[in-house]
Amino acid sequence: MSDSAKISAADPSTRPIPVLEVFGPTIQGEGMSIGRKTMFVRTAGCDYRCSWCDSKFTWDGSAKDEIRMLSAAEIVEELFALGGNTFDHVTISGGNPLLLPQMSFLVQQLHDHGIRTAVETQGSRWQDWLVRIDEVTLSPKPPSSGMETDFEVLDSIVARLLEASGRRDICIKIVIFDEEDLNYARDVHKRYPDVPFILQTGNPQVSHESEDHVSSLLHRYEWLIDRLSELPDLKDARALPQLHTLVWGNKRGV
Amino acid sequence: MSDSAKISAADPSTRPIPVLEVFGPTIQGEGMSIGRKTMFVRTAGCDYRCSWCDSKFTWDGSAKDEIRMLSAAEIVEELFALGGNTFDHVTISGGNPLLLPQMSFLVQQLHDHGIRTAVETQGSRWQDWLVRIDEVTLSPKPPSSGMETDFEVLDSIVARLLEASGRRDICIKIVIFDEEDLNYARDVHKRYPDVPFILQTGNPQVSHESEDHVSSLLHRYEWLIDRLSELPDLKDARALPQLHTLVWGNKRGV
Ligand code: SF4
Ligand code: SF4
Repeated sequence: MSDSAKISAADPSTRPIPVLEVFGPTIQGEGMSIGRKTMFVRTAGCDYRCSWCDSKFTWDGSAKDEIRMLSAAEIVEELFALGGNTFDHVTISGGNPLLLPQMSFLVQQLHDHGIRTAVETQGSRWQDWLVRIDEVTLSPKPPSSGMETDFEVLDSIVARLLEASGRRDICIKIVIFDEEDLNYARDVHKRYPDVPFILQTGNPQVSHESEDHVSSLLHRYEWLIDRLSELPDLKDARALPQLHTLVWGNKRGV
Repeated sequence: MSDSAKISAADPSTRPIPVLEVFGPTIQGEGMSIGRKTMFVRTAGCDYRCSWCDSKFTWDGSAKDEIRMLSAAEIVEELFALGGNTFDHVTISGGNPLLLPQMSFLVQQLHDHGIRTAVETQGSRWQDWLVRIDEVTLSPKPPSSGMETDFEVLDSIVARLLEASGRRDICIKIVIFDEEDLNYARDVHKRYPDVPFILQTGNPQVSHESEDHVSSLLHRYEWLIDRLSELPDLKDARALPQLHTLVWGNKRGV
């Protein structure tokens, strides 16, 4: 056994994290910090199988050769190699990063570097490190995803986040494809009235990106604005598109 | 003199406000509350003459026949006639609403109805009612506007807002057309490092709206993201487009 392997076995902070992508700086394209400059770390693995998942490669095996097992320190090193001194914010995304207890070491190291952290999860699993995240987005999945929400788990996650000491921003963000999704969202908002609430335009998985895709997304967004406008039970809500899909969908089509 | 005229002279709260538009519910298409459901009240009159002003009709005389002199109570009545029980947020926009001391009565009445208020102003004038606004956006104008910022006035507005008691969200939002605007924005952010900071894609005034307009806006936005990404002095900043311009520009062109 080599010296480094001995250290690794003794030190849980080197427990590897399955990583699919480290990229940025770019902007957060959606949700409460929409437009915010950030770096992304995308972990592999998800306990859901959403019909319209836009990152199926994180769990369907198609990118399994690209998964790298990295320590928290290696991820931080890669973030700084890419972003230099231009960033102060990292978004952890998946898949579902909440499958990984060892993310706590990454969160700790990012904070040690003075970096603000954001996480998005469907809210199906708890990890203690979640309370140390500065911006937590819970995105329970509506009926169009084909998934079912375990509201007991979600209730407990929301309660723990709201009760935890320290300052953090939290929001619930729900992707909306149709009226059924909207009804689901209204129920969720009624269940957690104190959590800032965002409706997000659904992004259908089309095979080729084009101007038509942008136009179709904008029309979907317009529909969502119209519906939001007329609903008395959604007063204090936001409706947002995914900006990265508009911009880079647009680009790929040109 | 009629009875109502006598009451009007005696009661400053009936001092009329020059209003050009009352509309909604819709979403706030830009800035810190992007996507938030809101109603809009647009006042007439501006002390600036920005080259690319997207609401020139508020000050160039072209809509002077549409200006209505309304009391705060009449505006509130109109908001509820339009929005019923579907809204809890009103955005006051212009022109420059800070030209109008009598807005204090509108702000008071909106708060009495439990409504959250937002204002956008270039930051050239102070009114005491500004500290009672929940979301204050200061949007000093960059060189491409042809205007010059009076930083003494802006300094004093920022200081008064930061020192005032009570909870409010404030941000500085700067429209960016080119590198010169970006340099201006970087200086402003350096001057007020504690104020949340947003770069907004410039929206050139084109004569006909079309898909090309959307595509051009998205390319401008992509440029802004690229520039933001590489600037070390703009770590904690956001880059955002105007969503209403994307959506309704898009619509008019189809
Ligand atoms: S929870 Fe997210 S990552 Fe998992 S399948 Fe659904 S959309 Fe994809
Ligand atoms: S400050 Fe605003 S309303 Fe006034 S001229 Fe400039 S852009 Fe137009």
